[in-house]
Amino acid sequence: MIHITRRERFNAAHRLFRHDFTDEQNMEVFGKCSNPNWHGHNYELFVTVKGEIDDKTGFLVNLKILSKIIRENVINKLDHKNINIEVDFMHGKLASTENLAVGIWNEIEQYVNALGIELHCVKVMESENNFVEYFG
Amino acid sequence: MIHITRRERFNAAHRLFRHDFTDEQNMEVFGKCSNPNWHGHNYELFVTVKGEIDDKTGFLVNLKILSKIIRENVINKLDHKNINIEVDFMHGKLASTENLAVGIWNEIEQYVNALGIELHCVKVMESENNFVEYFG
Amino acid sequence: MIHITRRERFNAAHRLFRHDFTDEQNMEVFGKCSNPNWHGHNYELFVTVKGEIDDKTGFLVNLKILSKIIRENVINKLDHKNINIEVDFMHGKLASTENLAVGIWNEIEQYVNALGIELHCVKVMESENNFVEYFG
Amino acid sequence: MIHITRRERFNAAHRLFRHDFTDEQNMEVFGKCSNPNWHGHNYELFVTVKGEIDDKTGFLVNLKILSKIIRENVINKLDHKNINIEVDFMHGKLASTENLAVGIWNEIEQYVNALGIELHCVKVMESENNFVEYFG
Amino acid sequence: MIHITRRERFNAAHRLFRHDFTDEQNMEVFGKCSNPNWHGHNYELFVTVKGEIDDKTGFLVNLKILSKIIRENVINKLDHKNINIEVDFMHGKLASTENLAVGIWNEIEQYVNALGIELHCVKVMESENNFVEYFG
Amino acid sequence: MIHITRRERFNAAHRLFRHDFTDEQNMEVFGKCSNPNWHGHNYELFVTVKGEIDDKTGFLVNLKILSKIIRENVINKLDHKNINIEVDFMHGKLASTENLAVGIWNEIEQYVNALGIELHCVKVMESENNFVEYFG
Repeated sequence: MIHITRRERFNAAHRLFRHDFTDEQNMEVFGKCSNPNWHGHNYELFVTVKGEIDDKTGFLVNLKILSKIIRENVINKLDHKNINIEVDFMHGKLASTENLAVGIWNEIEQYVNALGIELHCVKVMESENNFVEYFG
Repeated sequence: MIHITRRERFNAAHRLFRHDFTDEQNMEVFGKCSNPNWHGHNYELFVTVKGEIDDKTGFLVNLKILSKIIRENVINKLDHKNINIEVDFMHGKLASTENLAVGIWNEIEQYVNALGIELHCVKVMESENNFVEYFG
Repeated sequence: MIHITRRERFNAAHRLFRHDFTDEQNMEVFGKCSNPNWHGHNYELFVTVKGEIDDKTGFLVNLKILSKIIRENVINKLDHKNINIEVDFMHGKLASTENLAVGIWNEIEQYVNALGIELHCVKVMESENNFVEYFG
Repeated sequence: MIHITRRERFNAAHRLFRHDFTDEQNMEVFGKCSNPNWHGHNYELFVTVKGEIDDKTGFLVNLKILSKIIRENVINKLDHKNINIEVDFMHGKLASTENLAVGIWNEIEQYVNALGIELHCVKVMESENNFVEYFG
Repeated sequence: MIHITRRERFNAAHRLFRHDFTDEQNMEVFGKCSNPNWHGHNYELFVTVKGEIDDKTGFLVNLKILSKIIRENVINKLDHKNINIEVDFMHGKLASTENLAVGIWNEIEQYVNALGIELHCVKVMESENNFVEYFG
Repeated sequence: MIHITRRERFNAAHRLFRHDFTDEQNMEVFGKCSNPNWHGHNYELFVTVKGEIDDKTGFLVNLKILSKIIRENVINKLDHKNINIEVDFMHGKLASTENLAVGIWNEIEQYVNALGIELHCVKVMESENNFVEYFG
């Protein structure tokens, strides 16, 4: 059993807030992250998969294929986008890093499984000080 | 003569576009950076000042004072904000990293000079791959 | 179940030595880390907590609260301090990175638990080449 | 139980290919990594060991000893070398990062065990975007 | 006048040696970098250009165009290649980082000038500890 | 003319204070950096030299020689030391990063000149947020 990780990056805008909160409540709970005019981040995404090494290639998985899965199903939907408005798998959810990590897992799990390997971890870094890991 | 640099960070949303361009023209010139729903970045700001070492303190400048100048005049205006809409010194300007660097220089130059030292460089990193330097 | 990590930093002096060792024994076991005049590091601290996402906020935990716990109970005691002399939770212990990680865990565990979440890992980086992880 | 990690680095050349493949087959499976004239990387190696803290020293293990084990058994064989041609423990194997991580584990496990501690993870970073972890 | 920098990366194999030296002489001058079986690096390339901001776009230069120039004229020739054997602009030169920086400058200068801006610096990082800057 | 930079690192303890100040004055000017029990840093040192490329080697300078000069004259004096007490070239000076950069320049300039090249810059990073550059 071996683990391999691919990093991809995306830049996006978001806002943390609830429609059923007043502006004051949103500010109290979410602070400056609730700014109605949005703010944004350079997100870093680390996708870790696991399984057995293929003797024929020496690979767990061809990273070009894994990278393509991540870019087509996640990065293309998120990069230079507004997470609250434009990202289908985040509709109706709070645009937190936690929900983003779970959403990304759900977007790519079936494609990773189809390669005969397992998805192990989705890690999303919002800044050099904050990151989330989801193990399914 | 010695140079000293202080790094500060801010997260902001922006959009690159011209009001007098059609959507197609904006997309052609600015690409996905022209997304009307905004995107954003973790910006890193490096402010370099220069001058003579003060024999009494061993400092060119007390970095707490320099950091306070940067935070009060720049970071507080930019952090978790929309650069196009909310930042006074960017009004009427394209929200490019180039204009941001020049704008930041203009915001802090007088306060740096008032310390008896010179502003040498404002460097703004938009991502690990792109950065701008302005020397006045 | 989701994991979230907050990084905080502190600069401190320390020395590795035993009172019941001669200088030669200390030098043999601890090398230049036993220098009686101290040396120091820029430590990086990564605190990882885990639990369920709160549907109301999209958060596992508000990172401002987690950051406040870490700063009040750990960073304020360690930053710009001498670990051997000034840090209450290190009294009577060797000032190794291993003991520091365990000590930090013990300082914050009750406050993390009081938030209804679990402390998962305390990671202390002493340099870019050396780091310790403690899982309780 | 505590985990401690030591980073070491090496620069090496390699090529991904199979003797029983045609050039076209190698290009199809391994892409530009199959270049017959070689290419190379600045590899980063993170070795994580685990066990109990020694009350006498405050250490899990003296990192100088762990570093010496890694350098003598791994770095000296890999640094400024050709992984396909010159590295004994890679003979007959595809020079993938996956196989490298397993090979490094096998080279050092006995020496780590002889210290009375356990080898937990060998992590090999081939680039800032790709890394492999092997847990035995 | 503003400076903007674009980072691109490439992985390559190389060897430092002279045909007119014996193996012993090569080892004496170039050390393990003269290994006849090659070794390699993850190189980082920073290209800095300078000029006036274009009022119409807020850009010094569209970074997609600058990136395309660098990739077509430099990265495509170097990435996953052997610098001594396969890179046209390095033929007959020692494959040092110094010569690489000068060679890259010569490859891109005319294309940068054609954009109406100036090439300011080519910086090549061979490792986290060593880098070269060439200002023309 | 080409510039080449070598990074070296050292860990040291220091304190910012004046003997002719009261504790209150020291605290007012130097803040927590004046802690009488010391604190410390992982310093990063970047030494940049400049000159012409040697056609015979492709080098500006053999980095092993430059590294040896830095280690023998600077790192060995600073690493795991107390800058205020133990470092000869800092005696009688405030242990600021500014004075450290000037002191390091003076320690190595003659050895760099003896190689037939010029010392261009000594850069000392005290933390990821603060650094000093001295150009002589």
